[in-house]
Amino acid sequence: MTVNERAALASTLAALREALGDDAVRVGDEIGERSMTDWTRHEPTRPAALLLPRTTEQVARALMICNDARQSIVPQGGMTGLAGGSIPRATDIALSLDRLAGVEEIDSAAATLTVRAGTTLQAAQEAATQAGFELALDLGARGSCQIGGNLATNAGGNRVIQSGTARDQVLGLEVVLANGAVLSSLNKMVKNNTGYDLKHWFIGSEGTLGVITRAVLKLQPQRASRHTALVALSDYDQAVSLLRRLSTRFGNDIGAFEIMWPDFFDFGVKLTGTRSPFAEAHPLYALIEHASFDTDDDGSRFSGVLMEALDEAAIRDAVIAQSVADTRALWAIRECTAEFPVKLDPINFDVSLPIGEIGAFVDRCRAAIDRAWPGNESYFFGHIGDSNLHVTVDGHSVPGVDHHDVYALVYDMLAPLRGSVSAEHGIGSLKREFLPVSRSDEELAVMKAIKHALDPNGILNPGKLF
Amino acid sequence: MTVNERAALASTLAALREALGDDAVRVGDEIGERSMTDWTRHEPTRPAALLLPRTTEQVARALMICNDARQSIVPQGGMTGLAGGSIPRATDIALSLDRLAGVEEIDSAAATLTVRAGTTLQAAQEAATQAGFELALDLGARGSCQIGGNLATNAGGNRVIQSGTARDQVLGLEVVLANGAVLSSLNKMVKNNTGYDLKHWFIGSEGTLGVITRAVLKLQPQRASRHTALVALSDYDQAVSLLRRLSTRFGNDIGAFEIMWPDFFDFGVKLTGTRSPFAEAHPLYALIEHASFDTDDDGSRFSGVLMEALDEAAIRDAVIAQSVADTRALWAIRECTAEFPVKLDPINFDVSLPIGEIGAFVDRCRAAIDRAWPGNESYFFGHIGDSNLHVTVDGHSVPGVDHHDVYALVYDMLAPLRGSVSAEHGIGSLKREFLPVSRSDEELAVMKAIKHALDPNGILNPGKLF
Repeated sequence: MTVNERAALASTLAALREALGDDAVRVGDEIGERSMTDWTRHEPTRPAALLLPRTTEQVARALMICNDARQSIVPQGGMTGLAGGSIPRATDIALSLDRLAGVEEIDSAAATLTVRAGTTLQAAQEAATQAGFELALDLGARGSCQIGGNLATNAGGNRVIQSGTARDQVLGLEVVLANGAVLSSLNKMVKNNTGYDLKHWFIGSEGTLGVITRAVLKLQPQRASRHTALVALSDYDQAVSLLRRLSTRFGNDIGAFEIMWPDFFDFGVKLTGTRSPFAEAHPLYALIEHASFDTDDDGSRFSGVLMEALDEAAIRDAVIAQSVADTRALWAIRECTAEFPVKLDPINFDVSLPIGEIGAFVDRCRAAIDRAWPGNESYFFGHIGDSNLHVTVDGHSVPGVDHHDVYALVYDMLAPLRGSVSAEHGIGSLKREFLPVSRSDEELAVMKAIKHALDPNGILNPGKLF
Repeated sequence: MTVNERAALASTLAALREALGDDAVRVGDEIGERSMTDWTRHEPTRPAALLLPRTTEQVARALMICNDARQSIVPQGGMTGLAGGSIPRATDIALSLDRLAGVEEIDSAAATLTVRAGTTLQAAQEAATQAGFELALDLGARGSCQIGGNLATNAGGNRVIQSGTARDQVLGLEVVLANGAVLSSLNKMVKNNTGYDLKHWFIGSEGTLGVITRAVLKLQPQRASRHTALVALSDYDQAVSLLRRLSTRFGNDIGAFEIMWPDFFDFGVKLTGTRSPFAEAHPLYALIEHASFDTDDDGSRFSGVLMEALDEAAIRDAVIAQSVADTRALWAIRECTAEFPVKLDPINFDVSLPIGEIGAFVDRCRAAIDRAWPGNESYFFGHIGDSNLHVTVDGHSVPGVDHHDVYALVYDMLAPLRGSVSAEHGIGSLKREFLPVSRSDEELAVMKAIKHALDPNGILNPGKLF
């Protein structure tokens, strides 16, 4: 940092202290490790300062000051991201939404929840449940991640097949623009065709177009009964047919359709120290949840449709959980991914492809990885109903491998299919280089034009996305 | 038109003829009445020319030529709009999507339909049905309206409570920008977090940001059984409670929840020449459709929940359709609106408000209209589950009334509630003046900044929206 830069920063910080109060501006050792990196643990960096505004107005004043000073800002939520979208650079000022927290209102007639950006997902879920509703958004990081970050990254998670991504839960949004203008579109109406639907511009923009400060979220009724099954399948085509059969018979009462290839399934069984519920090995497994609103639903219709599929040889085998313990045991296999960071050196992929193309892609992808790194241990699984495939290659199994080479190999195979290099985690700083795999030059040009229109000085989260 | 303007237009038309072929460029009497106005029949105007491109590439070339010449363009679909969004001015060139029609692909594994913009909604619906799916979008104009127009206006329609608006049916979009660049984002994936989700910028933008040429739409499984009920209610609060009760018990198997106030209901009964199915008059009526995926659903759960509500005095009365004829008779009352243009001089409102506020708004609104125009005949009804209220004042009942005065009175009452002056029909040219009722200065400024970024010469549908 030059002397001039240092003086400019000091003057910006003085203005920020005056606007927000001394306790809302931290520097140096006052900034904890939590503000330095996300759940990727990638390159922890202490930002030039950390702001902790308490109100939308304070966020607006902070942005106005930084915009005038051409000072870059990194919005930060719960720091649970997996793409580096909230990791600061040393010259950035981090803007934490931690203090802008709390549920403001539940409107039972409209079935909406108005919430501040810094509220954890779990706190919002609990408020919804207490009011007799359900917030459909759910993901593993629920206790730490914040609504603002969930919306800024358009988080996916566990219930997308049933209720869509974070975007689909939003009716209204309040956003502070780079110049400090507050766009307060806290709409509660399902239908509102009065000009451009601004909320969609900011959802999923990873903090590059504005800072989300409040949101109006849709609430759903609570589902009354849940039933879980693990199904053994001959091949991927059977999985797609089963998905369509269940969708036809149950609509979006199908709340999970998780596919596990044998490499993943066997590893999950081993990691959880359980036994496969099947006597023999199978080419593919599907973990399926059925959740209905019918309080008298004993699961017999769900198991009946699976039995019908078995009779028609449309599936190879099925077990249906008969107890909470059964259900937990089945889910434990799928959720062994929580152990991945501990047991593996995970090289993770979060790609998406049209549902019908995923099976062939897995086969070709596995073959290519095996050719390049014989002896590698890799795990294939995914939320197939959402067109989302996860692949984890264990770096330990290919000593000395450059993670980047693995990324390049997989993304190169994805490019001709126009697949997505990020189904649900976003681009952040870690996938920037691969964005052109999924986006055309024309699309990127438009994104940049919009970025320039809304943030002409480029102060919002520079180095992310583009 | 000055001599210079005339020469410029002639040169533009010559370039267009060369690019698209003579048969794709019409002028003067070659332009039929259909291209001159929409279903409002407002100010029919012959445009300077009518273009009929056959391909996305021809649309791109046409826009490039017009952009270079600063020639304004009005995109046109089925001309069924109700806000004047596709009505040309005499100096505009109309760009019809009529020839860019047809379903390109149905992907049964992904449950998607890829369709050209000029395809009628009905043709798209029929293709979906034939493939064993259902396209959730449906509206009265289905036989004439086109997918491109449906998306450009984010059409609502009959199934929003169940499946959302046009926006919610879209996975991918191809759009031609003002400068002729083709944004081909024909994504089929449910999850795709790779930068800004560009489709949302164009859906609902009423042709002011780009011309939609193709779309990938989500398909739904077909529902197996439908049951219809007409319920009599004591007041609006009972309607909201019933909506919540049904939503809790049936989720989005509730496919319609149409509220009719007595003025509307009685008029509907009279117009259809039927009798009310109830022996006495009631303060409010709800027409409700339950549609489930269960082939064995005989409607007993649905009627059981209504009976339970009756036992608890949570509703006043209910009739459940026992036959197709019964169902048609009940819907005929609600659909008497088709006769409005014939029987009335309709002054129409398409507003939205948070669901809990609609009842009180109706009471205050009716009182204000009665005070201003004693003896008026007005009809209140709405898709309450979508937060959408329709009001029709019969101009015949208040001879000499200036429609504009009625608009001003109702919208003035809406402004403090931050209600929407257009729930589903859009702003177009007819509601421009009232856009600030629903949008703040900050929101309008951002909309204009984006408009300028994407269409710096302002050639796309000028005079609409802003």
